[in-house]
Amino acid sequence: MAEQSLSVFKTTSYQEKPNDHELSFGRTFTDHMFLMDYSEESGWHDARITPYQPLQVDPAAMVFHYGQSVFEGLKAYLSPEGEPLLFRPQKNLQRLNQSNERLCIPQIDEDFLLYALKQLIQIEKDWIPTSEGMSLYIRPTVISTQPFLGVAPSTNYTLMIILSPVGAYYKEGINPVKIAVENDYVRAVRGGTGEAKTGGNYAASLKAQEVAAQDGYAQVLWLDGVEKRYIEEVGSMNVFFKIGDEVVTPQLNGSILNGITRDSAMALLRHWGYHVTERVITIDELYTEYEKGNVLEAFGTGTAAAISPIGQLDWGHKEMVFNNGETGHLAKNLYDTLMGIQYGKIDDPFDWVINVNTAVSTKVS
Amino acid sequence: MAEQSLSVFKTTSYQEKPNDHELSFGRTFTDHMFLMDYSEESGWHDARITPYQPLQVDPAAMVFHYGQSVFEGLKAYLSPEGEPLLFRPQKNLQRLNQSNERLCIPQIDEDFLLYALKQLIQIEKDWIPTSEGMSLYIRPTVISTQPFLGVAPSTNYTLMIILSPVGAYYKEGINPVKIAVENDYVRAVRGGTGEAKTGGNYAASLKAQEVAAQDGYAQVLWLDGVEKRYIEEVGSMNVFFKIGDEVVTPQLNGSILNGITRDSAMALLRHWGYHVTERVITIDELYTEYEKGNVLEAFGTGTAAAISPIGQLDWGHKEMVFNNGETGHLAKNLYDTLMGIQYGKIDDPFDWVINVNTAVSTKVS
Ligand SMILES: Cc1ncc(COP(=O)(O)O)c(C=O)c1O
Ligand SMILES: Cc1ncc(COP(=O)(O)O)c(C=O)c1O
Repeated sequence: MAEQSLSVFKTTSYQEKPNDHELSFGRTFTDHMFLMDYSEESGWHDARITPYQPLQVDPAAMVFHYGQSVFEGLKAYLSPEGEPLLFRPQKNLQRLNQSNERLCIPQIDEDFLLYALKQLIQIEKDWIPTSEGMSLYIRPTVISTQPFLGVAPSTNYTLMIILSPVGAYYKEGINPVKIAVENDYVRAVRGGTGEAKTGGNYAASLKAQEVAAQDGYAQVLWLDGVEKRYIEEVGSMNVFFKIGDEVVTPQLNGSILNGITRDSAMALLRHWGYHVTERVITIDELYTEYEKGNVLEAFGTGTAAAISPIGQLDWGHKEMVFNNGETGHLAKNLYDTLMGIQYGKIDDPFDWVINVNTAVSTKVS
Repeated sequence: MAEQSLSVFKTTSYQEKPNDHELSFGRTFTDHMFLMDYSEESGWHDARITPYQPLQVDPAAMVFHYGQSVFEGLKAYLSPEGEPLLFRPQKNLQRLNQSNERLCIPQIDEDFLLYALKQLIQIEKDWIPTSEGMSLYIRPTVISTQPFLGVAPSTNYTLMIILSPVGAYYKEGINPVKIAVENDYVRAVRGGTGEAKTGGNYAASLKAQEVAAQDGYAQVLWLDGVEKRYIEEVGSMNVFFKIGDEVVTPQLNGSILNGITRDSAMALLRHWGYHVTERVITIDELYTEYEKGNVLEAFGTGTAAAISPIGQLDWGHKEMVFNNGETGHLAKNLYDTLMGIQYGKIDDPFDWVINVNTAVSTKVS
C-alpha cells in the first residue's frame, strides 16, 4: 500500500479538562481527532489530525440511510511512569478490516493507521486520566459519505478516530450484575452481520435492552437467532462460564463478535492451567448443569469493563445465582491481571502492551 | 400533540435543473429540504424548510456508531393537469412511526409531518419531472444525533426530508430481471429489525448483492434467517407468485417489510377478482410447483419500480423461468394500473391519491 503522509492541524482553543471524578463513559471528547477520506480515484487519502469539530455531511450521505459503517473500541492507559500504553491495538485494526470486508468498505492500511493513532495519542496524552481504573477510550469509525440513495456500496468514506477520557467502570470495586435471557429479540443471526462491529447490530439491540432495564436487569444474554437455544453474548460482551473443571465460552460462529478481551481471557486462563473450551453451549445445558450445582462462575468480557461478573441470570422464571451472587475467583483474577497488564503494573507475558512513546517516529513521512 | 409552526427559509441560489433524460435514481437533490429536531426537553421542535445543505454532525453522534436511524421512501407524481400528487403518503408516515417504535425513536405527529411534506412539495413543485414515468422521490429520514458513545437510545434526533427527481425506472418499457436465491447471507430474522425500515437491514444486504451482481444477477431472493426455506423478499421489494389460480405473497412475519406497493397490489388483484393469499411459502414448494408447470408469474413490488417482473430465478443449479422470461399478464396490468393511478390518469377506486395543492393550508400555524 502507498505510503501516506499525516498532516497535523492543532487547535487554537484548548478545552479545560474535566476533573477525573466527573468522568463517566463516552460523553467528553478531546481537543483533536484523526480523519482520513476514501474516494475511488485516490484510495484512502488526506490523513490529518484536526481540532475536534462537527463533520459536514450531506443529508443524502449513505451512512444516514443504509447504515454502511463500522467501528472499533480500545483504550489508552497511563503506566505508573506516565507512559501512554495501548493494549493489543493491532487486533482492533485487524478486526476493523474484517468488519470492512463484511460491509463492502475498502480495506485500510493497518500499519499506517496504528502509526496515526500513536501520533494522535501523543498529542492528546494529557487527556489520559491519571486516577485508578481510568483511561482514554479510543473510537475509530468509518462512515459512508457518498450522497446517493441507491442501495449499493458507497464510493466515498471518512474514517475518524475520536478520543474520550472515561471514568473507572466500577466506581466501588468490581461488582456482579443481574442479567435476563432474551427470548423475543435477536441481535444477530448466522449469515447476518453479528461478527462485524457495525451500527445495525447495536441499533437492533436497543429495544431488548430497554425492556430488560425496565424489568431491573443490567443487560440481556443473547441467544442465537435460529434456534433461540445457543448462548451467544451478554450485552456488548462475550460470555464465559465455569462449569465444573471446564471454562466454556461460545465458539465463534459468524454471529458472535471476536472479542479481544475474550481472546486475552482465554490466553490467561490457559496460561494458568485451566481447561478452556470454545464450543456451542445451549441455555438448556447451562440450566441443567446449574441445577446439578456445577456452574461455579459466569462473567462477560469486553474493553469497557474488562471483566463483568454475572451474579444472577434469569431465564423466564428460572433463576440462576452464581457464586452466591458474588464476584468469583476467576473473574477477580482475570480482572486484576488484565488491569495490571493494561496499566503496565505487572509482567506482560504475551507482549500485549505497546508503549506509544516508543517507535512512534519510525514511519514519519 | 402540540401544534407546531413551520418556518420557511428560501435559498438565494437556485440550482439549474437537470434535463429529464439525464436523471437516474437518487443522485440529484432539490433546492430545499425539511428539517425538524427532537430533544427530551422540547420534543419535536424547530420544524423548518431550509436550503439543501450539509448537516453539521458531531463525530460522536450516535447514528455514526450505533445505527439508530429509520427512513421512508415515497414519490410525488405530476398529473396531466400539472398537479403534484402523492400516493398513500399516510401509510409511509405510519410505517415511519412503526420503525421508530422498533428503534426506540420517539413518535412523530403524522398529520403535522404530512402537512410539512405538502408544503415542501409545493415549494419544490417545479422539480417534479414532466416526462413519462418520471417522478420526485421523497426520502424522510430520522438520525440520532446525541454525541454519546454509550449503547442506549439517543436523547436527540433530527428528521430530514430530502427530494430527488428520478428518471423512469424502465427506460425501455417494463422488463423482467434475473434473480438468485440467496443461500449464504441473511437480510433479517424473526426478532430482528426486518420489519423496520432501518439502515442496518440495507447494510447487511450489500454483500449478497455484490456477489450476486458479479454472477450476473440483478438482485437476490431472501429466504428467512432461521430455516433458510421460507421466501421473504426480493432485493428491496416484496414478492408475489401466481401459482395456478392463486396469487401468493409471503405473510408479514416480523422480518418482512410491510410494503405499501404490496398492499396496493393485493387490493387491486382482489378488486379484479383474483384469489390472493398471504401465507408462508417455501422455496421447495415454489420449485415443486414450478416443475409441475404451475408457477405462471413472479414479480416484485416496491415504490422505486412499482412492479418488477422476475424472468428467471436460480436456486443453486435449479433454474426457474417464468412466463418464458417475459413480463406476465398480472405484472403488466398491475404496473399499468398503479402508474395510471399514481399519475392521476385513470380512476382511483380506493382514493389512494392526494393532490398536494388541495387542503395544504388547513393547518398553517
Ligand atoms: C457485541 C460485542 N461483543 C463483544 C465485545 C467485546 O469485544 P472486545 O473484548 O474486543 O472489547 C464488544 C465490544 O467491544 C461488542 O460490542
Ligand atoms: C426491504 C424492502 N422491502 C420492500 C419494499 C417495498 O416497500 P414499498 O412498496 O412500501 O416501497 C422496500 C422499499 O421500499 C424495502 O426497502
